[in-house]
Amino acid sequence: MIQKLIEKIKKTHAPIVVGLDPMLNYVPDHIQKRAYAEFGETLEGAAEAVWQFNKEIVDATYDLIPAVKPQIAMYEQFGLEGMKTFKRTVDYCHEKGLIVLGDVKRGDIGSTSEAYAVGHLGKVQVGSRQYYGFNEDFVTVNPYLGSDGIKPFIKVAKEEKKGLFILVKTSNPSSGEFQDRLIDGRPLYEWVGEQVAAWGREHMGETYSYVGAVVGATYPAQGKALRKIMPKTFILVPGYGAQGGRGKDLVHFFNDDGLGAIINSSRGIIAAYKQEAYKKFGPENFAEASRQAVKDMIADIDGALQAAK
Amino acid sequence: MIQKLIEKIKKTHAPIVVGLDPMLNYVPDHIQKRAYAEFGETLEGAAEAVWQFNKEIVDATYDLIPAVKPQIAMYEQFGLEGMKTFKRTVDYCHEKGLIVLGDVKRGDIGSTSEAYAVGHLGKVQVGSRQYYGFNEDFVTVNPYLGSDGIKPFIKVAKEEKKGLFILVKTSNPSSGEFQDRLIDGRPLYEWVGEQVAAWGREHMGETYSYVGAVVGATYPAQGKALRKIMPKTFILVPGYGAQGGRGKDLVHFFNDDGLGAIINSSRGIIAAYKQEAYKKFGPENFAEASRQAVKDMIADIDGALQAAK
Repeated sequence: MIQKLIEKIKKTHAPIVVGLDPMLNYVPDHIQKRAYAEFGETLEGAAEAVWQFNKEIVDATYDLIPAVKPQIAMYEQFGLEGMKTFKRTVDYCHEKGLIVLGDVKRGDIGSTSEAYAVGHLGKVQVGSRQYYGFNEDFVTVNPYLGSDGIKPFIKVAKEEKKGLFILVKTSNPSSGEFQDRLIDGRPLYEWVGEQVAAWGREHMGETYSYVGAVVGATYPAQGKALRKIMPKTFILVPGYGAQGGRGKDLVHFFNDDGLGAIINSSRGIIAAYKQEAYKKFGPENFAEASRQAVKDMIADIDGALQAAK
Repeated sequence: MIQKLIEKIKKTHAPIVVGLDPMLNYVPDHIQKRAYAEFGETLEGAAEAVWQFNKEIVDATYDLIPAVKPQIAMYEQFGLEGMKTFKRTVDYCHEKGLIVLGDVKRGDIGSTSEAYAVGHLGKVQVGSRQYYGFNEDFVTVNPYLGSDGIKPFIKVAKEEKKGLFILVKTSNPSSGEFQDRLIDGRPLYEWVGEQVAAWGREHMGETYSYVGAVVGATYPAQGKALRKIMPKTFILVPGYGAQGGRGKDLVHFFNDDGLGAIINSSRGIIAAYKQEAYKKFGPENFAEASRQAVKDMIADIDGALQAAK
């Protein structure tokens, strides 16, 4: 799957991923009204509104991008109905040929981590049959519990030729509270980064590992250091646009081969129609605004990568 | 809710929680066969088998215990059908008067953590209406992302008078890889513990905070140190029995008032019928075996607490 991701990035010239993190207030009124007319102001209605919103954005952008990253929390907030929309979104993105990074940030011990891995990447055994649960292609994983928490994900990822991205340095302002604390003179996130590189050697693709890392766009200097610590690790970089990062700040996340990173934008793409730059599209054409925002993001990042050569 | 938990612990003399973490191989054959006869060897069949298993265990133990802790990973592995059984289990435990600790180990940044908190503890707004998603009473949360990741949970917990347990020192063998690393001469888990105590002051009950901690039974010495660092923090202690901890090792997790900790056992209770000590019950009477295992666990822990007085 890491090979497929690399091939799709090369083909689209777009080392980007669209974050499908739909807050209900991103969903234009006309879509919400239509869904509530059919299902009432219910969890089912909200889940339908989110689904229609996602579908239009995917339809308007899938030919430009290699991958999407649905943030499961935004679906889980609507309970079971939201989870149905999560699954429906994953399946639809697969139909459109997109790679799906499930942003689930799971992580637990031994058999429990394995259950998460099975549910999101693998197949569960039921009597003599096997079934996929949510069937994403990659998932994000939290490293706080150490190797016991990570290895079951690697085991299932190997069986399925899928991958994971482990949190190393997150994009939020308070990420430093624990991640930046010095251990033998080096910040915790560097120790985690070293461990990610070591775990990654257990599940290599041709040039990059199936075990990736998450490093926030908001910390370019740390990204530069981590790029060197984890040379064969693909880095998923959240925090582009809305959270502050721009193309020129992000070139250090890439290797000299122009690969090794994939930049996520969520709000900046899916709620583009609310931004000054894309207001002209109007809420009715929100998906066209998202398409334009994707094009602009690709130009920004590709331009920065060309300029850095 | 922390007051209700304390009252129920006092009334039952049972500072314990039963972990509803059903692996399919814990579910006796006769239950699996019945479910597959009705729904086939499908995800629906597996979810039905797990539900019937849970229901019998809850029916056989609810009068002895204050709380249950369903581990959501064990449901997530069966996809949407598993999530339905998770919700059904939470609702049924509430009907039986039990407090539900959702072992979800979620954690993300800002608005994403808030979405998780809304989905598991709070109510989501849909138009003019509000709905609970999964509606647990407490959830477990991962601290790696720092305050941004935790405060949204505290905000929602305050609104709902519910609580959380933050991972501090987990029970697994490799928990030390990052958690034990020394920062200014003290292990990371102590720094996290101090922060948990500080966060806890923002949401106090009468004597204990609504913000608790998770500290593994397998690390009694660390439990002792953390008890002092977080005097008003309720500690959720996994790892009893199957993972190694016993009553006498756990007295240091409690304060002198006999409170301040709640010990979890999962496999040791729900799969008791598979253990030598409870084999006489047989798979048909697995729930009676669980009831006996609960009684034995209460006697072990209460005995150890009395002996330590």
